[in-house]
Amino acid sequence: MSAPTEHLRELLRPAALGARPRVVVIGGGFAGLRAVRALRGSPVDVTLVDRRNFHLFQPLLYQVATGALSSGEIAAPLRAVLRRQPNATVILGDVRDVDLAGRRVLLDPAAGSDAPGECAYDLLVVAAGGRTAYFGHDEWEPVAPGLKSVEDALELRRRILLAFEMAERSDDPGTRAVWLTFAVVGAGPTGVELAGQIVEMARDTLRRDFRRIDPSTARVLLLEAAPVALPGFDRRLQERAARDLRHHGIELLLERMVVDISPEAISVREPDGTVRRIPTRTVIWGAGVRACPLAATLAAQSGLELDRGGRVPVDTTFTLPGHPEVFVIGDMARVDRPDGTPLPGIAPVAMQQGEHVGRVIAARATGAPAPAAFRYRDRGSLATIGRARAVGTVFGLRLTGLPAWLAWLGVHLTYLVGFQNRLFVFMRWSISFLTRGRGARLINEPWTTTGNAEVSVADEPAQSDATAA
Amino acid sequence: MSAPTEHLRELLRPAALGARPRVVVIGGGFAGLRAVRALRGSPVDVTLVDRRNFHLFQPLLYQVATGALSSGEIAAPLRAVLRRQPNATVILGDVRDVDLAGRRVLLDPAAGSDAPGECAYDLLVVAAGGRTAYFGHDEWEPVAPGLKSVEDALELRRRILLAFEMAERSDDPGTRAVWLTFAVVGAGPTGVELAGQIVEMARDTLRRDFRRIDPSTARVLLLEAAPVALPGFDRRLQERAARDLRHHGIELLLERMVVDISPEAISVREPDGTVRRIPTRTVIWGAGVRACPLAATLAAQSGLELDRGGRVPVDTTFTLPGHPEVFVIGDMARVDRPDGTPLPGIAPVAMQQGEHVGRVIAARATGAPAPAAFRYRDRGSLATIGRARAVGTVFGLRLTGLPAWLAWLGVHLTYLVGFQNRLFVFMRWSISFLTRGRGARLINEPWTTTGNAEVSVADEPAQSDATAA
Repeated sequence: MSAPTEHLRELLRPAALGARPRVVVIGGGFAGLRAVRALRGSPVDVTLVDRRNFHLFQPLLYQVATGALSSGEIAAPLRAVLRRQPNATVILGDVRDVDLAGRRVLLDPAAGSDAPGECAYDLLVVAAGGRTAYFGHDEWEPVAPGLKSVEDALELRRRILLAFEMAERSDDPGTRAVWLTFAVVGAGPTGVELAGQIVEMARDTLRRDFRRIDPSTARVLLLEAAPVALPGFDRRLQERAARDLRHHGIELLLERMVVDISPEAISVREPDGTVRRIPTRTVIWGAGVRACPLAATLAAQSGLELDRGGRVPVDTTFTLPGHPEVFVIGDMARVDRPDGTPLPGIAPVAMQQGEHVGRVIAARATGAPAPAAFRYRDRGSLATIGRARAVGTVFGLRLTGLPAWLAWLGVHLTYLVGFQNRLFVFMRWSISFLTRGRGARLINEPWTTTGNAEVSVADEPAQSDATAA
Repeated sequence: MSAPTEHLRELLRPAALGARPRVVVIGGGFAGLRAVRALRGSPVDVTLVDRRNFHLFQPLLYQVATGALSSGEIAAPLRAVLRRQPNATVILGDVRDVDLAGRRVLLDPAAGSDAPGECAYDLLVVAAGGRTAYFGHDEWEPVAPGLKSVEDALELRRRILLAFEMAERSDDPGTRAVWLTFAVVGAGPTGVELAGQIVEMARDTLRRDFRRIDPSTARVLLLEAAPVALPGFDRRLQERAARDLRHHGIELLLERMVVDISPEAISVREPDGTVRRIPTRTVIWGAGVRACPLAATLAAQSGLELDRGGRVPVDTTFTLPGHPEVFVIGDMARVDRPDGTPLPGIAPVAMQQGEHVGRVIAARATGAPAPAAFRYRDRGSLATIGRARAVGTVFGLRLTGLPAWLAWLGVHLTYLVGFQNRLFVFMRWSISFLTRGRGARLINEPWTTTGNAEVSVADEPAQSDATAA
């Protein structure tokens, strides 16, 4: 860390002259927001740039997608979160590019101006996150949306609820069966949790809501290319999860590679090599994430090559080679553990990285000793499978069933930002647990009764290319 | 009522033969939903058709538009509301037309079919509601959206919050002042309540959220063509409301006729005849409502002429001339009081009409005596102006200040549909009252930082022409 340290010292020299170093943070997700908060009270001016005005608690997005929570309950306005941190300014802006040589962040044009906005920095923290990846099959996006944003979640909720409505309107048993087939691609935590919630919605929440169909006959398929559910989890937990998922009524199909998705069906290669076509109108993509495109411009300007997930490879200083004033953290960063495996793209990793980088900058600004080198503390991971059932590890302890589920509740309520959100989520969960109901079941506009895929092509929210998560 | 009564008896003859009369209700708003519920337990088959899957509590929409409530909290899924009414079937569908001669409702095509859906009826209740009207100035819609749907409310919330963000991003004091000017057109209850909430948002909620602007310097203009605020209210209450509004910091401009609205300004004719141009980026239209276009096809087929508000003129049987099997109620119906003035388009009127028509149908179906002729019971009306301040009448009693505000709270919580919604709204209000915060402050996608009007042109939710509210 000697080069960055020296460089930082030089960078921070203006502080001695009265000018406070300008720290710009791109992205108010888990990584970026933690970095900003770690700089509270430090003699620096922090500017947080995000294209959304809220911090999103992504681990609960799947509950918005299935109507258990409403979107505002897992979002906290960045301005409210940082209200009592006077050295932090929030800018709502879409980052177009970063100019490493000129030390400035280029934004979309500000109001009443044609010129792009810009933000000069002395130190930059890039934490713009990831987005859904289709591994060379971007044409699947309209027919199999992912789950990364509030809009994604509302779109999935619209599709799932609409499928039941369409089944109710149809007179043909075959058509009904197709509408009542849901395919979730990818048996990571997101896929597992989504599939579990769709089953509960069909079997409990909607049970008595329809007159012509029986929602509990819905089929939920969970497709996974690997031979196990929850790849990355402990082997015994994987086996338990597979058993629990099947017991829960989910058709868990392992070693299935998706070869095609159309508005009418999903086709998978079976373990024996044959291709099976499964008619369905509702496919959800939970199979991949890629760093946001801002990673490419950083890599190009610093002579790096992105990894397969589009991430910027950095060591545990998180700085770019030749640019010790630029930190890359969170889902945009590829950081390898001592054993060579990369750190997973999950909230605890992002939060610890944000905290660390914030502390490094704070220490330099005050001349305090640098914090110890970064080391990821794995406190565990949990995935819910259904009502009162989860699997995971907490502080090295393997948990299943009710204890795992209670641990999951506690962890998520603890990390959810904002008192009001915690209270409301806790109440929604209590009511849902007691009544098996769901509080947020709006089908958003626009919809047509002709189908799901047709609508989505026109309605996918516009995504610009360089964005802060 | 003799002709409709005889006709109804004839219509209901199949009941004696074992076939239950089919009652179709278009629209699950206050009028339609009340009609359906009044038929609970009656020997009829009720089909409720709505283009949305939820009942919306419109009187609180303005709180969604200003971030105090989230949209799910004032919406109740129709299927959940009618879960325990086995004779009621809900169909999610967009009504294209009504064929009075053929006694069928034509819907948009169902899933997997090109042919339009249809719904045959023996008795029809049309309660498809109203929409924002611009009185010959439809070109104002993109620059001055109204407040009739959830999407409208989220669009207004986006615009209001974005205006503060744009002011914060601007370096020019003039541009900032324009962004911080809000114009609300129409000083009816919606306009009054919206203006009051914007002031509170600027002065309380956002007070410490910005670093470069002072949100409390925001100007809120309330423009009204009439010489009084709250036209239709008691004269003394109008005066009190005007005083309260001004005391609250709202620029109440009476006798101002809007002559032009552009993305940059609103122009009004002053009482002295001169035209004044007020630069603003955020104009909200609360000045007019018109019955939905389905009214026109009903009028054309039954030889009626719509009134100025596009409503179908009916007497207190609510039936179409020559079509005693078709009832028109709620905001689509023009019903005159004995003194010749029309009943206002408000929730209590719609609810009482729905209840009455439902009871008329239920009485005929069981052969019970017909209920007494319809008479609107005016229990009063209330409008909040701000924190702990409202005006209105309750059971003929004039109320102002805190008592009026408490009455307003009680009435709205009582009529809000759904236990969970009541609980959550009550909690949000309690928290907001104590903290002056707002729980739902997301700026929805998509947005651009270049302005409000530019975005809205592309993003106005598509509205089809014949719709059930």
